[in-house]
Amino acid sequence: MTPVAMMHVQALLFDTYGTLVDWRGSILDELARFGAATGRREDWARFLAEWNACYRPGMDAVNRGERPWATIDALYRERLVELLATRGLGNMLGGDVDHLNRAWWRLRPWPDTVAGLTRLKRRYVISPLSNASFAGMVHLAKFAGLPWDCVITAENARRYKPHPEVYRTALTLLGLEADRVMMVAAHNYDLASARALGLRTAFVPRTLEYGPDQASDLVAEGKWDVVVDSVEELAAALGC
Amino acid sequence: MTPVAMMHVQALLFDTYGTLVDWRGSILDELARFGAATGRREDWARFLAEWNACYRPGMDAVNRGERPWATIDALYRERLVELLATRGLGNMLGGDVDHLNRAWWRLRPWPDTVAGLTRLKRRYVISPLSNASFAGMVHLAKFAGLPWDCVITAENARRYKPHPEVYRTALTLLGLEADRVMMVAAHNYDLASARALGLRTAFVPRTLEYGPDQASDLVAEGKWDVVVDSVEELAAALGC
Repeated sequence: MTPVAMMHVQALLFDTYGTLVDWRGSILDELARFGAATGRREDWARFLAEWNACYRPGMDAVNRGERPWATIDALYRERLVELLATRGLGNMLGGDVDHLNRAWWRLRPWPDTVAGLTRLKRRYVISPLSNASFAGMVHLAKFAGLPWDCVITAENARRYKPHPEVYRTALTLLGLEADRVMMVAAHNYDLASARALGLRTAFVPRTLEYGPDQASDLVAEGKWDVVVDSVEELAAALGC
Repeated sequence: MTPVAMMHVQALLFDTYGTLVDWRGSILDELARFGAATGRREDWARFLAEWNACYRPGMDAVNRGERPWATIDALYRERLVELLATRGLGNMLGGDVDHLNRAWWRLRPWPDTVAGLTRLKRRYVISPLSNASFAGMVHLAKFAGLPWDCVITAENARRYKPHPEVYRTALTLLGLEADRVMMVAAHNYDLASARALGLRTAFVPRTLEYGPDQASDLVAEGKWDVVVDSVEELAAALGC
């Protein structure tokens, strides 16, 4: 992207799970604590993989209109209850299930995230554009210290990324044309959908998001406007 | 409100124009600067009163379904163009009209606003619930330093307060039952509508919002849960 084109960008939208926070490491820690508290020995990495396996199919069912709108919290809770039952933990109190499910609201930022966002906020409007629930993203921001100007999620569109309606809803709320807005993500599919609508794109690979054996999103698979290794590098690239 | 009931509140929603920022004083200053720059002598207080007179009728027309959704920025701009024409300024450039119209994004907070919000943010989720546009509220927050956790406005519901759908949309996005949420406003009508849906209420009168001759909202007209003279007093009343 030329410096002139960069000058036109007024707002940055950030994918959050993976791009800004280490969901896998954070939730594995929560599950280990849960295991210690309940005296359970489990392969928690496998448990988490099975838990997270509900993510894409649940969202796709909503996008195809096969199920009514449900937040990602509701989709994760549904799957968690199933998984706990298979482990003989089906008698947990509802409040305890909620607490465990809300591990998705307590995720550690990558080391460069908060410093990078803080710099970018000086010049740009910064917002998440996540598949999280609105409330989940608000609580995550408080937990992780993400200094958003506002919060926009899939819930505002009642569709999930990469459905175009999610990006369109963000543009409408921000009151900006697509070329004034940059989507920042660690996932090529997210940037592809954003670019198809005319948004600018920045790729920040997170090659350990899925652990040491990660096989996807290791490199840019499109000609994204910016490719950097951290949010601080993004700030530098955008002159902040 | 009893201390026990207060402990249940998790989020605070704030009316913004009037309650948190001095729209009248700020816009009169902008209009005076506009007059100096263009060499116009006008009764700017009257001009502003005529400008602001479009506020309620425009929103009511949307709420009644008589006109499609339009942001408050669009309603104000429509009226501003009419007023400028009556003053022989109908040939202003579109960008200059936009700049003047966006005076509504550049409003000074009352002296207690930022300090009070900053204290409340430590314990509660704080958000505007304003009839402003989403973008307008985001820009106002940056201008005035309002430390929101998120932004929710009438635009998220595509209805205007006091339509119940505006408050319901906020509850859905926050993922909270009504009695967990407190509406804070300088306007009795806003609190009445919030309370009818079960929200807690806090009245912060701003007796100079409309200037020295203000005749409305000087006192509480309902048994609101909290009545205080500033956002800092609200923070103290809620234990922050």
